[in-house]
Amino acid sequence: MSRAFNFSAGPATLPEPVLLQVQRELLEWQGERASVMEVSHRGKAFIACAAKAEADLRELMGVPDDYAVLFLQGGATTVSALLAMNLARAGQTAEYLLTGHWGEKALENAKASVRTHVVASDADNAYRRIPDAAAWTRAADSAYFHYTSNETIHGVEFSSLPDVTDVPLVADFSSNFLARPVDVRRFGMIYAGAQKNIGPAGITVAVIRKDLLGRHGRELPPIFDWQNQVKNDSMFNTPPTFPWYVTGLVLQWMRDEGGVEVFARRNAEKAALLYSTIDGSGGFYRNPVDPAARSTMNVPFTLHDEALDKTFLAETEAAGLMGLKGHRALGGMRASIYNAMPLAGVQALADFMRDFAVRHG
Amino acid sequence: MSRAFNFSAGPATLPEPVLLQVQRELLEWQGERASVMEVSHRGKAFIACAAKAEADLRELMGVPDDYAVLFLQGGATTVSALLAMNLARAGQTAEYLLTGHWGEKALENAKASVRTHVVASDADNAYRRIPDAAAWTRAADSAYFHYTSNETIHGVEFSSLPDVTDVPLVADFSSNFLARPVDVRRFGMIYAGAQKNIGPAGITVAVIRKDLLGRHGRELPPIFDWQNQVKNDSMFNTPPTFPWYVTGLVLQWMRDEGGVEVFARRNAEKAALLYSTIDGSGGFYRNPVDPAARSTMNVPFTLHDEALDKTFLAETEAAGLMGLKGHRALGGMRASIYNAMPLAGVQALADFMRDFAVRHG
Repeated sequence: MSRAFNFSAGPATLPEPVLLQVQRELLEWQGERASVMEVSHRGKAFIACAAKAEADLRELMGVPDDYAVLFLQGGATTVSALLAMNLARAGQTAEYLLTGHWGEKALENAKASVRTHVVASDADNAYRRIPDAAAWTRAADSAYFHYTSNETIHGVEFSSLPDVTDVPLVADFSSNFLARPVDVRRFGMIYAGAQKNIGPAGITVAVIRKDLLGRHGRELPPIFDWQNQVKNDSMFNTPPTFPWYVTGLVLQWMRDEGGVEVFARRNAEKAALLYSTIDGSGGFYRNPVDPAARSTMNVPFTLHDEALDKTFLAETEAAGLMGLKGHRALGGMRASIYNAMPLAGVQALADFMRDFAVRHG
Repeated sequence: MSRAFNFSAGPATLPEPVLLQVQRELLEWQGERASVMEVSHRGKAFIACAAKAEADLRELMGVPDDYAVLFLQGGATTVSALLAMNLARAGQTAEYLLTGHWGEKALENAKASVRTHVVASDADNAYRRIPDAAAWTRAADSAYFHYTSNETIHGVEFSSLPDVTDVPLVADFSSNFLARPVDVRRFGMIYAGAQKNIGPAGITVAVIRKDLLGRHGRELPPIFDWQNQVKNDSMFNTPPTFPWYVTGLVLQWMRDEGGVEVFARRNAEKAALLYSTIDGSGGFYRNPVDPAARSTMNVPFTLHDEALDKTFLAETEAAGLMGLKGHRALGGMRASIYNAMPLAGVQALADFMRDFAVRHG
């Protein structure tokens, strides 16, 4: 047995050097004579580890000083519920642009806290493109404008930022976080569950313009008021220390590899190889997404005959290509090719797909 | 270097056999050709791992079938906020019995969702005893009665259950979970952050009588409505898979060691040794808690001269006895002696303390 190329959508593949370091220091971490899992989050060693993760993230993303960086629990779904409480007053409107499943979920989780307004939705078109800005219906006086930068299930990604400057732009970047350079100044808030591009499940990063916090005027449980997390460096209660530590190692690895620009080039190359394999298959494989909105991270595709799906999955597994089964909502296949997936993995998948098409075409 | 005896209050010491297994299978888990951190929570292997953790917990605790077992994110503090939303209707009263810091925090986090009523509080006495039930003031028609089974900071523990049978009893067992047998049927809900007795930080276990869910009548974000977590086996969104997996290994270890009764005996023996060392020191060491309410898990103590604190901490560290600095709210020392702390660790601490008292007395 050996490690496979893992195309899972999240939790997802992690850099092997990170896993090797975690394994090496699992019982004794940094002279603490204990595992990183066993030390106090308020001890010097863990505080330094947490601060370094934040500093590395700020450097990688270019986060300005007037933005807070939070490491939160609960996943992006919890954060999508809490952002409505933290960024809007009771009864205020918030705008949502829907390009897939996760945008819908963010909307549902905000409804108890704000009046939601759907700016545009591609639901009737089965989420295969980004709705044209000319057809958006904007709301007056909204607290923020929310969209999903990359839809993990539908494979729809914004290649540029929505042209929204009148209200704070809030974006779920869970599945394309740090996958390409982003101008943080254009945002009120960016958030991302770690388990796709930057770490294990159990921690969610939020980058928030500080002046947006504290305006909500609500009586919130203190644990849900992000001002408390800002004041306490994300340690208002015991944080998920191990996921935070591993995320820090991934961020260090990204710096070692050359930073976000390097990953953006690699990701473009990987995506181009996979889409060209699909488009060049004479219809054997199909991706339904408008080419302008195709995701560089999650590539859903179908086989021309779904009776071949089981064979495809069995043969890819045997070939060491794992996690290719599509989301149950769409069926077919999905290859997730996040930062930690090497070009060699995508090359192996593309080679397999061409060979499979010849044998079963 | 080698591993020390770690008396941290949480995150806390874990069983070494568990850490060795995590280390061994860190890169390739159960034939998945990937780390447990990298596999889908919806894959067969992780679902089996999660189900086994629940089954082992049910067996260890004796959880009846009409109780749900949830593995949640956000820590016990988040759960203390959510339980008020899930177990009470808007405007309904909930009762809180305060025996320390964490009871106060649970109360604060409930206030936005329920009318809170303090049944009794030992705050004026600096939290050194359990308020006598004869002096409690009960509220009419309350949704539940909340207390903290063991106060981690103040070292105050209930040695028996509060005599409350008219409304659902809800208890924070974070720091004495599975430390002794408990009759689950006496409770509406039990919850516990994993990072003291059963795992790493980042996951919180809740055991809830199912019929209590779904009565709240509130418009909650779906992610905060525990009915959704019950329906989805705690996977309404991506769960913290690695903390869940490690918790499962600790539960298996507890079964291998003989179950909760075995730990209850060991915990009683460890606590007796430490308190007798303190009480037998002729006033060199002092624990301020009413003997009837002394915690078997967290033993705060002071030195007769606080000028010796630094020396005590430096010498214990040098002797491989870590994490003894007391909580900043109380000062002094605190020894946390959870399930995974062996008797040998407490013996080493007691021996050190007697020797230190002789040298500095």
